[in-house]
Amino acid sequence: MAALINLKDAAALAACAVTGFDAAGVAAGIKKAGALDVALIACAVPCSGAGVFTCNAFPAAPVLYDRRLLDFSPTRLHGVLINAGCANACTGVEGDVNARLSAEAVERALGAGDYSVLVMSTGVIGKQLPMPALLSGAAAAVEALEPGGWGAAARAIMTTDTRPKLVTGTVELPAGAGSATVRITGIAKGAGMIHPDMATMLGLLVTDAAITQPVLQQALVDAVSRSFNRISVDGDTSTNDTVLLLANSLADNDEIDAPSGPAYAAFVAALTELCATLAQAVVRDGEGATRFVSITVAGALDDDEAHRMANTIATSPLVKTAFFGGDANWGRILAAVGRAGATVDPARATLTINGGPAEPGAARLGALQLVAGGQPLDYSEEQATAIFAQPEIDVLVELGLGAGAATVWTSDLSYEYVRINGDYRT
Amino acid sequence: MAALINLKDAAALAACAVTGFDAAGVAAGIKKAGALDVALIACAVPCSGAGVFTCNAFPAAPVLYDRRLLDFSPTRLHGVLINAGCANACTGVEGDVNARLSAEAVERALGAGDYSVLVMSTGVIGKQLPMPALLSGAAAAVEALEPGGWGAAARAIMTTDTRPKLVTGTVELPAGAGSATVRITGIAKGAGMIHPDMATMLGLLVTDAAITQPVLQQALVDAVSRSFNRISVDGDTSTNDTVLLLANSLADNDEIDAPSGPAYAAFVAALTELCATLAQAVVRDGEGATRFVSITVAGALDDDEAHRMANTIATSPLVKTAFFGGDANWGRILAAVGRAGATVDPARATLTINGGPAEPGAARLGALQLVAGGQPLDYSEEQATAIFAQPEIDVLVELGLGAGAATVWTSDLSYEYVRINGDYRT
Repeated sequence: MAALINLKDAAALAACAVTGFDAAGVAAGIKKAGALDVALIACAVPCSGAGVFTCNAFPAAPVLYDRRLLDFSPTRLHGVLINAGCANACTGVEGDVNARLSAEAVERALGAGDYSVLVMSTGVIGKQLPMPALLSGAAAAVEALEPGGWGAAARAIMTTDTRPKLVTGTVELPAGAGSATVRITGIAKGAGMIHPDMATMLGLLVTDAAITQPVLQQALVDAVSRSFNRISVDGDTSTNDTVLLLANSLADNDEIDAPSGPAYAAFVAALTELCATLAQAVVRDGEGATRFVSITVAGALDDDEAHRMANTIATSPLVKTAFFGGDANWGRILAAVGRAGATVDPARATLTINGGPAEPGAARLGALQLVAGGQPLDYSEEQATAIFAQPEIDVLVELGLGAGAATVWTSDLSYEYVRINGDYRT
Repeated sequence: MAALINLKDAAALAACAVTGFDAAGVAAGIKKAGALDVALIACAVPCSGAGVFTCNAFPAAPVLYDRRLLDFSPTRLHGVLINAGCANACTGVEGDVNARLSAEAVERALGAGDYSVLVMSTGVIGKQLPMPALLSGAAAAVEALEPGGWGAAARAIMTTDTRPKLVTGTVELPAGAGSATVRITGIAKGAGMIHPDMATMLGLLVTDAAITQPVLQQALVDAVSRSFNRISVDGDTSTNDTVLLLANSLADNDEIDAPSGPAYAAFVAALTELCATLAQAVVRDGEGATRFVSITVAGALDDDEAHRMANTIATSPLVKTAFFGGDANWGRILAAVGRAGATVDPARATLTINGGPAEPGAARLGALQLVAGGQPLDYSEEQATAIFAQPEIDVLVELGLGAGAATVWTSDLSYEYVRINGDYRT
């Protein structure tokens, strides 16, 4: 698993640079106290773009804008403008116009063509973008662009995130004269609130890989399905959730032009690993999170049913408060499985904690099976409690029905979650 | 709306008696410290029975037992045995046997035929019933049966409920020589945990109405669909959720033999009102609840879509923590509507707080519309905050698409909820 970049590690930060891309993060006065709040990613050569977006029926203006732009012109992109502090959601026609105006301002400043810049916003819902601040921030961001600007960009998109989330990695792909090294760098922001209005998840990745746009889109969908779509902090899907991927084709690899074959597989594997690192970082930094929990349902009739059951466990307040309390409360886990609307035979169900792969280098207690045939085994409560007292827990439910399996990552539900989200907006 | 019976009000308690039915509550030592933990309802003449049960795929042994009994012999029933302190869930064949043995013990003590007593359990999951204690409690309960025993029965089924939940009411039905008064009395227990394992909801109602068994079942389904199925404390459906209704036909009304017509409508209306009072009492007494919230979605394409959206609002941790914080955070409410998978046109959506019917006698602030056309109106934050500071709040989302509507009742998500459910079982 890839690791988050430590922004104090100058060498690691320098390694994030992707041929052809510049990044910047500036303070535009949208957040308080001079915090960075506008990020810009830009590329002088035209990029292909791919995106996955929230399914919420109240999509924010930048979601609507990016969806349309990627539909009609996904191969002549030159940048992405991101602001924190205002989500530009539930803002009607004025919000749509502001999304376009801010993109247009960056297009002019970059000397790029019309409809070549994407936008993302995160923050308070139901307020219009503070356009003078955003436009001056965008202008400053254009001036600040540099290949090593990823640390500032990662910081600028944070809301109540406590840690910036930046990753980078390389993959060797076939090329005319042997192989070409392709780099992927990405940033994300997680389940944070600004003056608690909405948990929004944004992710942006860029690569110098040569890859056709339809295949780029498929690669992003494949990677997200096993990373960002496998996390839950509180089950609330926001109005702004977006993951974008830009590719400028400056690497020397043989262009990937089909969603199959070894080059595609290698690219998707690397992309998935980076997305999973960002996604897990979002969960670890989830609001009030004190534990990181991996939930795997296996032996289901199919992967979809497994995913639905794992997701129901991951979003159950009773399960999540038990994780917070360090309570090996398997009855709540089985009850969540039982209400997921999937096929279950209680007599075949088993539940094991700590059975999955350990994190690299992490000390780890042994696996402990708690349930077989839908009934409790005579396990050691002391051992179960010791496992649930760890900061990282995994839970494996095996149904014995088929080959369907899915893993979901989640956090616990703590006092701090209630405090963060219950505090009146002041 | 019917009111809960105050157990200290002897006259009100006496009025709960239903011709032919006896009730009792005794301490059998299943709960600690001598608390009442076994309830029994019995009737010397054969009753028809109806039941609605949890859809959880891990149903508890008493759920399986009652389902089967009502399937094959729903018209010769003489009683219901209920224990708190142990849910008899995830207990395998031994649990099935224990459910039958405890029913059989009551049948023998009552001198009733085989398969004439139903059972309900609530409490810890994954533990076998303490049979010696339960059987001696059942014997003591048979001795303690009396027409006025409803208060003790209501107390005996409580787990972390802080208040017993007992209701009664009458309805005038057509009879040969005019009209007959029919009585319905019911008890319920709510979202409590014992050694926090499971929020379980149990309800039991009895009536002296003359009504055929299939129509009794339909009446219960109709009443539950607009009462117990419209509440959510934390969205977790338990292994034990059950509502039973017994009718002994001792009243002089013309037997209700079809699920239509004025007599059926009057009976269902009275039953629904009592079930709604019990259901709302469960929410008001929900774990850690500090507010009671009515959520109505109207103008949806159909009632099912409206119900799904209202339910998504009611189970959203972000919405529920905002209610706890007294925060008029409408963005979270619209976002929950948007992720319910139902049809929405943001440009037609409106949101109003305090627009619904006031509780009788409750002081009430005026209605305040916050959103129109999917965008915030220029409302007074001060007024919105004052409304959200009330212990009872209602939220109305109008979609402007059709005639579908549904109301769901829920509580907030507080520190206390996390404390109750996060505490290690000690």
